[in-house]
Amino acid sequence: MEWQADGRCLRLLDQRLLPAEERWIEVRSRAHAAEAIRSMAVRGAPAIGMAAAYGMALAAFSGEDLGEADAELRGARPTAVNLAAALDRLRGLTAPEDILAEAQTIEADERAMNLAIAEAGATLLPAGAHVLTICNTGAIATAGVGTALGIIRAGWSKGLIRHVWACETRPRLQGARLTAWELMQEEIPFSLIADSAAAFLMAQGRVSVVIAGADRIAANGDSANKIGTYMLAVAAHRHGIPFWIAAPRSTIDPASPTGEGFVIEERAPEEITQFEGCLLAPPGAPAYNPAFDVTPGSLISAIITESGAHTGPYEFGGIAPSGQGKSALGIPG
Amino acid sequence: MEWQADGRCLRLLDQRLLPAEERWIEVRSRAHAAEAIRSMAVRGAPAIGMAAAYGMALAAFSGEDLGEADAELRGARPTAVNLAAALDRLRGLTAPEDILAEAQTIEADERAMNLAIAEAGATLLPAGAHVLTICNTGAIATAGVGTALGIIRAGWSKGLIRHVWACETRPRLQGARLTAWELMQEEIPFSLIADSAAAFLMAQGRVSVVIAGADRIAANGDSANKIGTYMLAVAAHRHGIPFWIAAPRSTIDPASPTGEGFVIEERAPEEITQFEGCLLAPPGAPAYNPAFDVTPGSLISAIITESGAHTGPYEFGGIAPSGQGKSALGIPG
Repeated sequence: MEWQADGRCLRLLDQRLLPAEERWIEVRSRAHAAEAIRSMAVRGAPAIGMAAAYGMALAAFSGEDLGEADAELRGARPTAVNLAAALDRLRGLTAPEDILAEAQTIEADERAMNLAIAEAGATLLPAGAHVLTICNTGAIATAGVGTALGIIRAGWSKGLIRHVWACETRPRLQGARLTAWELMQEEIPFSLIADSAAAFLMAQGRVSVVIAGADRIAANGDSANKIGTYMLAVAAHRHGIPFWIAAPRSTIDPASPTGEGFVIEERAPEEITQFEGCLLAPPGAPAYNPAFDVTPGSLISAIITESGAHTGPYEFGGIAPSGQGKSALGIPG
Repeated sequence: MEWQADGRCLRLLDQRLLPAEERWIEVRSRAHAAEAIRSMAVRGAPAIGMAAAYGMALAAFSGEDLGEADAELRGARPTAVNLAAALDRLRGLTAPEDILAEAQTIEADERAMNLAIAEAGATLLPAGAHVLTICNTGAIATAGVGTALGIIRAGWSKGLIRHVWACETRPRLQGARLTAWELMQEEIPFSLIADSAAAFLMAQGRVSVVIAGADRIAANGDSANKIGTYMLAVAAHRHGIPFWIAAPRSTIDPASPTGEGFVIEERAPEEITQFEGCLLAPPGAPAYNPAFDVTPGSLISAIITESGAHTGPYEFGGIAPSGQGKSALGIPG
């Protein structure tokens, strides 16, 4: 993601086309930014927040109604708290330059946060780790090195990681398309697996730690993330394998005491029944396609933010989402 | 699957082409039968056994060496015990007519077994059941109504089933392609789901029972089945949901005390990284593709065979695979 100051546009790598094609989209309007978020041309909770912030800047430069722009962008994806948090940071700003400056600050903050998360997680990795991860939480989902994948990058550079298991992540295959692409670029040894093979690998003793991202974290640590994350946490718990969530503090939603109230986005059944126009199921076959699930805090060994690693029982009720109130986490900032 | 007496050939519905196309293959040689098994044109443990038995009849009619024919067919898929059990029943027979007659008896036995399994399982279903299943265990995987799917058919006809969750079953999508097709033909209400969504549905209280098939069952109940079955059993256990295995007694391998020695077939990585010629991952991305996993007997609430429902701790060590020795199960035949 790059803001082009001269052209007043946001350049986005179209994640729907990877790995077959690296096509950059030039987003020049708020409507286009909202569409890019809805259609998942841009995805990953932090990246969505940034795209929305730049979308507000585009709206302001075009003289659009900022209230309407905020409402459209805020509604483009319902689960990610980062989207709302980014837009909240722009509230009260009206001058286009001020909104753009704040969007750029959000981006810089994201990069710094990613590095801090990566370092905090990597120091906890055992030597020779076999890390299992799901979805894409890397550089193309964030502004920086990534969250869970940022820890993997940092752990690899420290010589602590032997191998990565990347869940393909049905139905949209972010693991197969995006995480595999990033791991190959970094030359980190990995294998793609069917999501459903993860528990079997754990039973064989071939997984040292599971690291996932999060789209929203409740005050008690309940974490919404890509569908399938809960299954990994249940299986890791059975096998005594550490299960970590890696996410910036902006993902924490202190106003939600638990994950019970989280709105789980349900996406089109065609994501299950079709692939690039090919039918995977008989015409008209019904499918249920929740995009996220909620992993209870009690199954999460550690939640790793830019403040460090937090262990349960989690009490994030007093934390402000944008980096203030660190002391409420009980961990020095 | 149909034996054509006049043409001396076995007609098989090519399961690789469903649901897009219903194409029947005419198998006229042992080599073709072995190839159909290897390539998964025919799949499902009971169906594989029958195809191998008819393959032996074709070898005998052609005057081929029966020892070589047995070895080739036996090696076509390593995990399914039914394949070996069917071939074992033909040992010592040399006349083509005798081998064919025994193959037809195997097929008739399979049909009767399927009906008995379906009845035994359906009587245990609660009213208004929401049944979750994986892979395809239906009429096109067997000679009759199916195993797990046979119970679903029988339960539906008794008015006990409200809804079926069908796991799409990566990587080969037997749930999306085949189970969906069978459920639509029977007009049983269902939804396809990503395999990784099953645990989340359980957490929401939307699953009454999980029913899976098996490819091989050890004396202690450890059951090899489609990759992902173990994950379902772990999740069902956590949520206190009954987890049933439905399989003919021929699936039981009394010579294996546990599942530890089961050979787990590893299939081509391209099943993960490609779909009908489309790349799902970057070119050259490595993948690990075990076709089966092993669910410990301790996680299985009931193993339902043609003899009825068995509950743990399982002690199948004294059972003969071909329907003798029923008393060793402790359940009247």
